Amino acid sequence: MDQAANPALLSTASATFEQDFAQRLHWSAEQDAAIEERVAAILADVQQRGDAAVLEYTARFDGLQAGAMAQLELTAAELKAAYDGLPAVQRDALTAAARRVRSYHEAQKKASGESWSYRDEDGTLLGQKVTPLDRVGIYVPGGKAAYPSSVLMNAIPAHVAGVTEIIMVVPTPRGEKNPLVLAAAHVAGVTRAFTIGGAQAVAALAYGTATVPKVDKITGPGNAYVASAKKRVFGQVGIDMIAGPSEILVLADGSTPADWVAMDLFSQAEHDELAQAILLCPDAAYIDAVLAAMNRLLPGMPRAGIIAKSLAGRGALIHTRSMEEACAISNRIAPEHLEISSTDPHRWEPLLRHAGAIFLGAYTSESLGDYCAGPNHVLPTSGTARFSSPLGVYDFQKRSSLIEVSEAGAQELGQIASVLAHGEGLQGHARAAEMRLKGG
Amino acid sequence: MDQAANPALLSTASATFEQDFAQRLHWSAEQDAAIEERVAAILADVQQRGDAAVLEYTARFDGLQAGAMAQLELTAAELKAAYDGLPAVQRDALTAAARRVRSYHEAQKKASGESWSYRDEDGTLLGQKVTPLDRVGIYVPGGKAAYPSSVLMNAIPAHVAGVTEIIMVVPTPRGEKNPLVLAAAHVAGVTRAFTIGGAQAVAALAYGTATVPKVDKITGPGNAYVASAKKRVFGQVGIDMIAGPSEILVLADGSTPADWVAMDLFSQAEHDELAQAILLCPDAAYIDAVLAAMNRLLPGMPRAGIIAKSLAGRGALIHTRSMEEACAISNRIAPEHLEISSTDPHRWEPLLRHAGAIFLGAYTSESLGDYCAGPNHVLPTSGTARFSSPLGVYDFQKRSSLIEVSEAGAQELGQIASVLAHGEGLQGHARAAEMRLKGG
Repeated sequence: MDQAANPALLSTASATFEQDFAQRLHWSAEQDAAIEERVAAILADVQQRGDAAVLEYTARFDGLQAGAMAQLELTAAELKAAYDGLPAVQRDALTAAARRVRSYHEAQKKASGESWSYRDEDGTLLGQKVTPLDRVGIYVPGGKAAYPSSVLMNAIPAHVAGVTEIIMVVPTPRGEKNPLVLAAAHVAGVTRAFTIGGAQAVAALAYGTATVPKVDKITGPGNAYVASAKKRVFGQVGIDMIAGPSEILVLADGSTPADWVAMDLFSQAEHDELAQAILLCPDAAYIDAVLAAMNRLLPGMPRAGIIAKSLAGRGALIHTRSMEEACAISNRIAPEHLEISSTDPHRWEPLLRHAGAIFLGAYTSESLGDYCAGPNHVLPTSGTARFSSPLGVYDFQKRSSLIEVSEAGAQELGQIASVLAHGEGLQGHARAAEMRLKGG
Repeated sequence: MDQAANPALLSTASATFEQDFAQRLHWSAEQDAAIEERVAAILADVQQRGDAAVLEYTARFDGLQAGAMAQLELTAAELKAAYDGLPAVQRDALTAAARRVRSYHEAQKKASGESWSYRDEDGTLLGQKVTPLDRVGIYVPGGKAAYPSSVLMNAIPAHVAGVTEIIMVVPTPRGEKNPLVLAAAHVAGVTRAFTIGGAQAVAALAYGTATVPKVDKITGPGNAYVASAKKRVFGQVGIDMIAGPSEILVLADGSTPADWVAMDLFSQAEHDELAQAILLCPDAAYIDAVLAAMNRLLPGMPRAGIIAKSLAGRGALIHTRSMEEACAISNRIAPEHLEISSTDPHRWEPLLRHAGAIFLGAYTSESLGDYCAGPNHVLPTSGTARFSSPLGVYDFQKRSSLIEVSEAGAQELGQIASVLAHGEGLQGHARAAEMRLKGG
């Protein structure tokens, strides 16, 4: 029974659709007070005791004993050895993926991450200078969900931005190291790497210890402890986002082989039992075909148990009145991954306002984007695509406004500033402007 | 005695400089557990009881009684009336400032906020589409620090980004409305406005109530309760940043009239007693001249008491060995406002890596930037310029990656993805890629 695909079958024409839909969608990253409290204690302890505290938590939570933090550092030689030791096909795939990811992020930097300025007629210069962060920390989950691709997706944009020091942390429970993760760190050009994880690793990066350097920003996904720790140190350091379970939404016009769409839904559902896979389609017969394909393909999947649970708990195949309605529902969901599985994807793309990444056309399986198309696979989840963006070069840059007011400009601006500053009761501001006026 | 300017006088040549410097710099937004607890309770209450809870807190904290939330909404007519009722000079200043702020942010959007894409040789399309947020909330502090300029600085970038609904909240303790704030809301094109504040206003915007619409992001500064509430709702909605006390750092080569620099330091110190004003200069005689100017000018300042306390508690005039050393120290501080008061500001600007806004040359007083030069005055404080940026159009936009893999592209990418997915134990990902291979 575990091996049947049982997503919810919904129809927008049904009287109970809104209710069914709301119930499926509901996922809430409730703040767990117990976790918050433990994380606060770990952060305070690491802030106070540094390396000693990190070593104790690593022994306790990861079952990894070490007498000194230096023992938990991965050397550049070790990363390179991991890369050299890979089968050639993996080494080549990793290198090819890294090359494409780098080239996409270079285009991104050029398109939206360069300094700019202009001069007014009176010679006043206005603009923004864009500079890289000095030092960032990237958190790479370890254990059962150790993803080398995540190393590339975090480190390469930082590298392209011009960050000089990239500090990676990755927990290695009981000391088990994943050679692909180490190799990816080598390919991506990580500066230093430590085999630590959890809230203690976030604390070490945020506050610095004798061994682990304090960083300016921490990116990368993690479990509930990591998420809580990142949220708590936010402000002291920058963070990227708080990741929830992964999601895919497929908008289908019925033209893509049903097997392909079924497998795309699986490829999200296999992440974990809370992952969400949704199909929106105006063609009822196609929905039937996808469901049949799912049931045919499921038993052959090594992660069938996880897929079945994800589909039964959070999956849905939704019959819509039209593609337009499907687009409108997609906007309500603001999915992390959005496939437009259609012969005419560019017809629908402009209607889609909120999504982490949009995959156009039948050939663009989400998994190509996950690994090697080039765009980042760290994407906003749980509807946060309403207000946030894929991880990118811009996450590793910051901007400083540039203002150079000419003498002539100061005459015009000074009078405006003076009036407004007096209106706010800030006479120092007013006087500073007035002093620059001729005869002021 | 209150009326003397007593900033710390430091020298980088002194043996105790590092210690003195660290002591001056130290400012920590310690999380106050009592505030966190009260804020959590207010948020939960508003999430549960909506308008009723907001009305109760507004009565309790702002001394403002209302029978229904509708009474706490400012109508468009009321905003316009406030604008029409201003003296012409204020109306003109507000309009001129708004025009310049708009024009700067339009340039910003063009330089770094437009969609982009490119095609690979095999026809694969990659890029990012940039879209505005649907609805944002802007928090405008009320009471003694009610700044109409902040209304412009928050609402105009949102407007330029293309946000359709801008919801303003501004507390009006005991019902006292600031006509300049209302007028600024009119000029900036705020969609709706409510006279509510504190954690309850943040909660209303984050969760929505029967009357206050739920927004996608909340921007704008506030007190410790507002900051704690914003941090807590982060993830459910976007937030801009957590603001600390305001800061100015002046790098001076001794060429600017000492009075001007003294007044620039005052204009930051007058904000509040925790504000920080620092001068870095290699010319000891000039430092003496600035100090003398401060003492001469201070008694004439209406906010002399606040200025004196800020300078005594957190101000510093630092004698450096060189301008280069001054730049290096500035980078360690990563100030919110950074003035290069020099005849050759473009010589030093490239050395300055971290700052919210950089003001070049003697005529560019910080106050011109605060009100009307064009760039945003909402800037990263407390050293967060190491990793964050001025509020901008980009804060009101988000990005969706675009990926359209051609059939040819799927052949190359599919093989890479397949290898990497198998390496991560994600066979669904691998199969989805393999199915797109010819003969797959």
